[in-house]
Amino acid sequence: MATHKLLLLPGDGIGPEVMAEVKRLIGWLNGKGLASFETEEGLVGGAAYDAHGASISEADMDKAKAADAIIFGAVGGPKWDGVPYEVRPEAGLLRLRKDLGLFANLRPAVCYPALADASSLKREIVEGLDIMIVRELTGGVYFGEPKTITDLGNGQKRAVDTQVYDTYEIERIARVAFDLARKRRNKVTSMEKRNVMKSGVLWNEVVTAVHNREYKDVTLEHQLADSGGMNLVKYPKMFDVIVTDNLFGDMLSDIAAMLTGSLGMLPSASLGEVDAKTHKRRALYEPVHGSAPDIAGKGLANPIAMLTSFGMALRYSFDLGALADKLDAAIAAVLASGLRTADIKAEGSTPASTAQMGEAIIKEL
Amino acid sequence: MATHKLLLLPGDGIGPEVMAEVKRLIGWLNGKGLASFETEEGLVGGAAYDAHGASISEADMDKAKAADAIIFGAVGGPKWDGVPYEVRPEAGLLRLRKDLGLFANLRPAVCYPALADASSLKREIVEGLDIMIVRELTGGVYFGEPKTITDLGNGQKRAVDTQVYDTYEIERIARVAFDLARKRRNKVTSMEKRNVMKSGVLWNEVVTAVHNREYKDVTLEHQLADSGGMNLVKYPKMFDVIVTDNLFGDMLSDIAAMLTGSLGMLPSASLGEVDAKTHKRRALYEPVHGSAPDIAGKGLANPIAMLTSFGMALRYSFDLGALADKLDAAIAAVLASGLRTADIKAEGSTPASTAQMGEAIIKEL
Ligand SMILES: CC(C)[C@H](C(=O)O)[C@@H](O)C(=O)O
Ligand SMILES: CC(C)[C@H](C(=O)O)[C@@H](O)C(=O)O
Repeated sequence: MATHKLLLLPGDGIGPEVMAEVKRLIGWLNGKGLASFETEEGLVGGAAYDAHGASISEADMDKAKAADAIIFGAVGGPKWDGVPYEVRPEAGLLRLRKDLGLFANLRPAVCYPALADASSLKREIVEGLDIMIVRELTGGVYFGEPKTITDLGNGQKRAVDTQVYDTYEIERIARVAFDLARKRRNKVTSMEKRNVMKSGVLWNEVVTAVHNREYKDVTLEHQLADSGGMNLVKYPKMFDVIVTDNLFGDMLSDIAAMLTGSLGMLPSASLGEVDAKTHKRRALYEPVHGSAPDIAGKGLANPIAMLTSFGMALRYSFDLGALADKLDAAIAAVLASGLRTADIKAEGSTPASTAQMGEAIIKEL
Repeated sequence: MATHKLLLLPGDGIGPEVMAEVKRLIGWLNGKGLASFETEEGLVGGAAYDAHGASISEADMDKAKAADAIIFGAVGGPKWDGVPYEVRPEAGLLRLRKDLGLFANLRPAVCYPALADASSLKREIVEGLDIMIVRELTGGVYFGEPKTITDLGNGQKRAVDTQVYDTYEIERIARVAFDLARKRRNKVTSMEKRNVMKSGVLWNEVVTAVHNREYKDVTLEHQLADSGGMNLVKYPKMFDVIVTDNLFGDMLSDIAAMLTGSLGMLPSASLGEVDAKTHKRRALYEPVHGSAPDIAGKGLANPIAMLTSFGMALRYSFDLGALADKLDAAIAAVLASGLRTADIKAEGSTPASTAQMGEAIIKEL
């Protein structure tokens, strides 16, 4: 059995608590001989800043490059609101994405039947919802230069951010979306603001060209990002796979996650290109939720998003889809039994701490 | 009685149909001696392109500059999908905003009690919702330079858009938001992505400084635009006034509008700076909804958003707040009577065409 090298980066806030449940799961899988994982641990975000004055150390970047996959918790919190821009907690995450070339961010938004009532939307609008948002993650306004604040004198400053996209960046993310659609309901909706942004014009043109050349069998639809956002709220079930840029993807995937009522349950995967020789790809897995500093350290956090993120690692990095399916089934069974962390509690449910939820899922496995 | 000069720009799609109801209302107000309006009409968007090959003619731009207020319908439609970028329908609207200096876009998102069930959100989440989104409208990525697509050779192109904000642009929009909050529930939520964008860092800094200097009595809160979007969907009633940049405002105001279930009802105002001598400000009023080409020409469109936009003109441009209140009351009464256009129809309601709805509102007045 191949041994896989994982780098665990718990980060800040509830990150370490939910990561503890991944460690528990890894220990159990190794112990049972169901898989073989070797883990290292590192610091990222505010935790790294407190230790090294940087949002991730060079040593941890090296470990990240050497790992088969990175399991990431969450970063940030009010404690670090005042730190310099360059070393703010988020910078560690952005550096990992950029330096490892993790251009494809997969964010499933799934409404778990047991949790449909937790949504702020009507049950019939979200029940059975299953959208995959494919967000470009290493380009756009996140990384474009210039990105500056200049003092103009007279008490005036000027801030500049730059959105840049090249053809190849749009092509490769479009392919990820079309490939995923083929394994799902065969439909891709591409979103941009081509009526206002030149990057939207190019985005639209390139996605259309990739479709015409390579994916004629998949249905392609274009929506402006603003009306796409409207449709997400009004008719979310019209979507299968949504492909969009870094900034629109940030907003739209958060909104989609919120629709499901299951924010504490939703995983994400950030993938690099497949290496032509090794057939491997770099990958980082993290929950969609943030570091939730308000509930950190209290054992209240829901570990399921972190565990399903690890499940995505099983699927996308280690070809252990069957094991990932078992994990999903165990989670569904535990939810059906009525066990709930505070974020998803319902009438008549049994309250569970982070650790109790993790234990119950392993027991079910 | 002062005579006010209006420029009517119906535009495309359902624009002319809903504008017809504004004309009916103006005729009635003039006839009754309740106000005195002088109207001119112009072309914008696809209609202007078809007539002049430009999305707005110089002659109509001159009329716009001379008018006391512009009443704008909607622009765009699939018919003009292939026209060159510079003359696409939206360019006419963007030029009006920029050349007239209409930096402050006010978009109320109100859930009409009679329509709460039309929302995709649960009634208890949106009932009584009353948010004012203040969107910066003449800056940011909409107008920043460079904004280009360059051919790099090798089949590669590079698209660039630039987000630029200067201190004064943020200061003046912040003041609009704080002033509005003082007349409402005294709370402003500012949204940006300061964890990723330098313009977000400056935005946050300037809004905070304006607050500290001039508006200590108003509650100010900051949210990242992505989690702000989440909160809009989950806890919309936490907001009173939201102030944000041009692009985030585009997305967030559309989402807020959708929450209310009343998209066909929501107006907007785009205001310039108050002239130090004349005490007047340039202004354009338009419905939040678009040109809806799919239902154009069928008498199905809801004219209420267009009429309430004219109501905002009464209030913000002509100091006719009492008349605007009467208009609002007439609309509420007609809705309560059960008359509904197709977009807001409900069990037991009486179907109405665009014209029937307009007539009923005037009759009620
Ligand atoms: C933490 C932050 C930099 C990040 C982003 O904006 O990409 C987060 O919101 C996300 O969506 O992963
Ligand atoms: C028509 C389009 C250019 C416009 C915008 O993006 O500002 C519209 O979506 C709006 O919100 O007024």
